[in-house]
Amino acid sequence: MSIITLTTDFGIKDGNVGAMKGVIWDIAPQAQIADLSHLISPQNIQEAALIVARAAPFFPDHTIHVVVVDPGVGTDRRPIAGMIGSQYVVGPDNGVFTLLLESAERSNFPVQWVHLDQRCFWLGEISNVFHGRDIFAPIAGHLAAGVALEELGTPIDNPVRINFKQPERTAYGWRGEIIHLDHFGNIHTNVRTDHLGDVAIATIRLCGVNIHNMVRTFGERPSGELVALYGSNGNLIISVVNGNAVRRLNARLEDSVDVFIEG
Amino acid sequence: MSIITLTTDFGIKDGNVGAMKGVIWDIAPQAQIADLSHLISPQNIQEAALIVARAAPFFPDHTIHVVVVDPGVGTDRRPIAGMIGSQYVVGPDNGVFTLLLESAERSNFPVQWVHLDQRCFWLGEISNVFHGRDIFAPIAGHLAAGVALEELGTPIDNPVRINFKQPERTAYGWRGEIIHLDHFGNIHTNVRTDHLGDVAIATIRLCGVNIHNMVRTFGERPSGELVALYGSNGNLIISVVNGNAVRRLNARLEDSVDVFIEG
Amino acid sequence: MSIITLTTDFGIKDGNVGAMKGVIWDIAPQAQIADLSHLISPQNIQEAALIVARAAPFFPDHTIHVVVVDPGVGTDRRPIAGMIGSQYVVGPDNGVFTLLLESAERSNFPVQWVHLDQRCFWLGEISNVFHGRDIFAPIAGHLAAGVALEELGTPIDNPVRINFKQPERTAYGWRGEIIHLDHFGNIHTNVRTDHLGDVAIATIRLCGVNIHNMVRTFGERPSGELVALYGSNGNLIISVVNGNAVRRLNARLEDSVDVFIEG
Repeated sequence: MSIITLTTDFGIKDGNVGAMKGVIWDIAPQAQIADLSHLISPQNIQEAALIVARAAPFFPDHTIHVVVVDPGVGTDRRPIAGMIGSQYVVGPDNGVFTLLLESAERSNFPVQWVHLDQRCFWLGEISNVFHGRDIFAPIAGHLAAGVALEELGTPIDNPVRINFKQPERTAYGWRGEIIHLDHFGNIHTNVRTDHLGDVAIATIRLCGVNIHNMVRTFGERPSGELVALYGSNGNLIISVVNGNAVRRLNARLEDSVDVFIEG
Repeated sequence: MSIITLTTDFGIKDGNVGAMKGVIWDIAPQAQIADLSHLISPQNIQEAALIVARAAPFFPDHTIHVVVVDPGVGTDRRPIAGMIGSQYVVGPDNGVFTLLLESAERSNFPVQWVHLDQRCFWLGEISNVFHGRDIFAPIAGHLAAGVALEELGTPIDNPVRINFKQPERTAYGWRGEIIHLDHFGNIHTNVRTDHLGDVAIATIRLCGVNIHNMVRTFGERPSGELVALYGSNGNLIISVVNGNAVRRLNARLEDSVDVFIEG
Repeated sequence: MSIITLTTDFGIKDGNVGAMKGVIWDIAPQAQIADLSHLISPQNIQEAALIVARAAPFFPDHTIHVVVVDPGVGTDRRPIAGMIGSQYVVGPDNGVFTLLLESAERSNFPVQWVHLDQRCFWLGEISNVFHGRDIFAPIAGHLAAGVALEELGTPIDNPVRINFKQPERTAYGWRGEIIHLDHFGNIHTNVRTDHLGDVAIATIRLCGVNIHNMVRTFGERPSGELVALYGSNGNLIISVVNGNAVRRLNARLEDSVDVFIEG
């Protein structure tokens, strides 16, 4: 039983995700397929990298993560597949796997890449605008059906990486930035438990406000209160209890966040 | 082959539903998973209770319904699981299963609850903000994999219930209220065939208009006409044929609805 | 292992798609189910026909496509099922399968229809407003479980067809129209590679602008440029590179599109 996840910027109206599932099941009828997200902002590679890196660790070994956010479709950007730790990834070579790769490297997990250049594993006819359906879905199907990674293409060791800004150490603590605005209106920052360790936060300043309310979970404060806490992936997040912090603070991606530590 | 449904207020962009599926399949790789809704209004326990109660009866015996609308996540509200009739439920103890439970009680179906306090069936690390992934998904996986309900926790018999207003008998018929506004713009009320029986409706008054058009189905009247009919779950609904009654009447949840009966 | 696809205008909030899956799995627990789209514009039969016709060819033989865009639900419009080529379709007899049928006829694929009038294959109780759940889902389940098409109803040979406008030959080339506006804001026209063959396009005029930029794929031009290219189904589409052509041109369905050919 193979598991495949799909992450795209295709939306859910036009049937394009469905076409990919048809292609996969034509090759691997037993595959279980989970949608991670199809609402990645159009062409936003960073966002796709973030969302797949947050969810992938919760899938079993051998899961195949297909990510199709692909502004370079039909150009000479390479189609690639890789083994990262014990899972597979398939998609365009544009940096969308950067965070998964960095995480594997920190853990010394094995990593292996191929440039997908074996056309016998693609659909017979390849459009210039939909490699998700014509290349990446059939490759995922063949991986699920048991074809070895090395049969699908030529080994490479230089997949494209994109730069994710890291928070910087400052005199007062850390300066980071906003990296994600979620469905609830929580503001996710790139400052993590790893950066702060056991140091206590005195104040967080972002979008012109100061937050002193560091909590463990939402229910500790009354509805409507602005709080800061660690999210489920270890990132510092800013929330309004039972409300929407993005709207309250008019927060935007890449806005800076200053964390003042105690002492 | 076990079937699991997921109902949350997580939205479909952030990948959190995907993470739950990964956790489930890691434990029960054969489970079939259906999304009921991930667009429950944030923290709206009533709405989640309604939507799961409408869909659950159409699933087979032994289906496991996971509902995660959980404003109290990380506080001391209990995580619970139950057997209601021939199906299972898993989620926070905040009343989200009230309607399923009341329906089972009306039918004298067996009901059984446990407080999920056996941590060996959870993920190893538990965040304070995402018990859907860290507690409820693994519990659903273990149920699907054959672990007995009673192994997962300590029996309880007092799950939290929330109050769903019932329509009131009046001199002229019934006074109810609006309980759901659906994707088509149909207005769902809490007045049901059970209340009215075979009595004919003369007039329905809501949002300042009177409706005399009681129909059996949409196609009986021309496009644009305002009609009332019984919905697919037995509730009285107000619709605009091929149009949007919510927008037409500016309807809101909890607005009152007066039903005048003939005679 | 049977595969079933679902295409509806039900949206994804109310749990109605979930109820259909419950009904299907109650009859055919092994069925793989893919959502093609649940965001068809309400009652828009043309749009549903287009989206299912684009995705269906990528599914394996024996796939069952259920399409429920059904303004006539509960009236005397017939519920039907058919074999089109090597796949099955199930839905209301309102023209929603026209494009699949025309495509099969062009390829001389076998076609077979039945009027679904064998109530023993429906749910026990039939609502007047939700045949997706009460008739079409159980029929799909029985097909998936191996019941033959001819057992489900009485043969018919006159399913309703709707008229899809074809582009017209003009002195300067072709005049077509806009048939779809996709999630990315690409404008899809009904002018196809079949019409133009190897003839080169000189200019495309729509929404008051002239486009000379005929490209093979998006990445050939800088972000923000307006281009025309062939989409993944062979239709001529107008796009803004990494942008939204629908918003840029204020394009609307059925707006006319003039294609001037070279020579």
